[in-house]
Amino acid sequence: MEIFFKRIEELQALMCSENVGQLAVAPSASLRYLTGLDIMPDDRLTLAVIPAQGRPFLLLSGLYEGEARALEPLFQPLIIRDDASTASALRQALSREAGLTAIDERMWAGHFMRISAHLGRHCPYVPAGELLSRLRIRKSRDEIVLLKYAGGIAAEAFKAVLPQLCAGLTERQLVNMLELEMKKAGGEGLSFPSIVAFGANAANPHHSAGQDELSAGQFVMMDFGCTFQGYCSDITRTVCFGRADALQKELYQAVLQANLAARARIAPGVSAHSVEEAAREILDAAGYGQYFIHRIGHGVGLDVHEAPHFGRDSRQILNEGMVFSVEPGLYLPGRLGLRIEDVVALGESGLEDMHVLDKDLLEIV
Amino acid sequence: MEIFFKRIEELQALMCSENVGQLAVAPSASLRYLTGLDIMPDDRLTLAVIPAQGRPFLLLSGLYEGEARALEPLFQPLIIRDDASTASALRQALSREAGLTAIDERMWAGHFMRISAHLGRHCPYVPAGELLSRLRIRKSRDEIVLLKYAGGIAAEAFKAVLPQLCAGLTERQLVNMLELEMKKAGGEGLSFPSIVAFGANAANPHHSAGQDELSAGQFVMMDFGCTFQGYCSDITRTVCFGRADALQKELYQAVLQANLAARARIAPGVSAHSVEEAAREILDAAGYGQYFIHRIGHGVGLDVHEAPHFGRDSRQILNEGMVFSVEPGLYLPGRLGLRIEDVVALGESGLEDMHVLDKDLLEIV
Repeated sequence: MEIFFKRIEELQALMCSENVGQLAVAPSASLRYLTGLDIMPDDRLTLAVIPAQGRPFLLLSGLYEGEARALEPLFQPLIIRDDASTASALRQALSREAGLTAIDERMWAGHFMRISAHLGRHCPYVPAGELLSRLRIRKSRDEIVLLKYAGGIAAEAFKAVLPQLCAGLTERQLVNMLELEMKKAGGEGLSFPSIVAFGANAANPHHSAGQDELSAGQFVMMDFGCTFQGYCSDITRTVCFGRADALQKELYQAVLQANLAARARIAPGVSAHSVEEAAREILDAAGYGQYFIHRIGHGVGLDVHEAPHFGRDSRQILNEGMVFSVEPGLYLPGRLGLRIEDVVALGESGLEDMHVLDKDLLEIV
Repeated sequence: MEIFFKRIEELQALMCSENVGQLAVAPSASLRYLTGLDIMPDDRLTLAVIPAQGRPFLLLSGLYEGEARALEPLFQPLIIRDDASTASALRQALSREAGLTAIDERMWAGHFMRISAHLGRHCPYVPAGELLSRLRIRKSRDEIVLLKYAGGIAAEAFKAVLPQLCAGLTERQLVNMLELEMKKAGGEGLSFPSIVAFGANAANPHHSAGQDELSAGQFVMMDFGCTFQGYCSDITRTVCFGRADALQKELYQAVLQANLAARARIAPGVSAHSVEEAAREILDAAGYGQYFIHRIGHGVGLDVHEAPHFGRDSRQILNEGMVFSVEPGLYLPGRLGLRIEDVVALGESGLEDMHVLDKDLLEIV
């Protein structure tokens, strides 16, 4: 409970300094961060409302009355039993005179429409993500321990599936094997639906695994991760099923060097943009720059995509306590694709890996 | 592809008759229903925009260019590479002169704010759920086959964990066992994070599984389900670990009779409310009505909670082709809780079960 008191206190200080009057959080990683509640978004309204000063409110369906009571020292629970109590809870928790209202971007639009109808035309609102990110972006030691635990489970699952690769295996089967192994190793949920792509399918970075069968000489791209106490892991490895040909080797080396160059660029005070540039320089020099079509990375925590944000428009400066992925890749339409992704924490003494897995080209023969 | 043509055609006819000018769908079960795309909601904007007449648009990150091209006969793809192309794609796809705009309620508020800023003050919008539900609520035979497949997997997993129950097992371990068995039996994802609650913990209908250990005489409530090709299963069973005492037997019989009474009430033309009443009459007569604190059921399909909607405010009439749960329960704070839940399809010749599992009180001795 103490940790949630501290987080709410920090958030309220930030709201005061930014002139935000109240902040509304829906079921999401931010709700878990502020309350510990792990609630699935639903038609039923669930909302934490944090005023800039004073005790926050927790609007919850009667289904969660037990959980609401347990959080009562910190939050005033408002139990919602029907439409009438929804309206009354909104009136009690969300002030029309609070000034600026910050809205959790992951709230469902359906709930947001209800809130915005309650607030009316003259209550301005802003996305809450930036404020919440400023807290969530700095991971504590406890959070890093959980991220490493989740990373360890995913790495173990990867090692467990490698000996099971065989000709004729479908992408879908390999997805199931990866997810089964993560579950066996103690993973609680998935960070995201696992991606497995064989050969040319991997030219779609987020290919949906299908019934295509593995055959000799194909790259096998696996992008997967699990959660542990809500914290996410995220790993991509690309292996060759059989001997790699000259093009595969060349592309793999380019991506590997880009991965290492990006990592080498990371330090406190360096811009996210510059890390992307480090990878891009290598891939451009290799003549494949135009096939690197996504961001170099993304923050990882209770969400698998969170701050810090990378990409060409990012002005993010990297600092100690941030945890993020480094994942250069190349995607040649109709031919092949590959990516090498790790998650790292930026600490006092440099980078700390959230999982330990070799990155050299592995040919499975 | 043909099925998506048909669904878009039906949707556009409905939009015309309801005077809805355009409809915007975010990554959600509705997007999957209309396009087949299984995309995780993300900071990146993904949007299907269906005008009341003419060819729909698909706004997608470059990551999904392959998928977008595959849907090109049906949708005009607008690939988003950066902020500039987001604005330009929104301008092209979403008209400010379309009249009423319907918004997928599951869209993230962050994206909705962007869309509503683009549309401006004078373009009215409404939630799209009601329109989309009118299509999705009537399941085809193909959809029912997938729902039964998902139900069969979950039932198999339940049977596989029963012999593994033992004193000292934690709720968390039992969650992992259930999810592992669903995965082994072919489940693709989870319908929702599984609920396992021992003894008094089950008095919270949506208890989060923790480290509490199973001991003799406790009820074990398990609420779980998996997806297969996106379609959800959802089962709750409550078993007694050891011999049930008199109160447990009495409560179990009340819930079982309520379950059977609710099922017996279901028929084409009957109101959802009346099904809830059928269960409530039994529980009231048993003297426990005040401990039945949630809705009797919910629709099940590509979402685990969808139309038809139950609850005291519901005016829903049940009809052929609808698939929904029937799940009475009793929750005595601080003492115990139980629920018995099945998913059924309402067909020409009555109810069809999406899974087959005995409902009598099982004492594991």
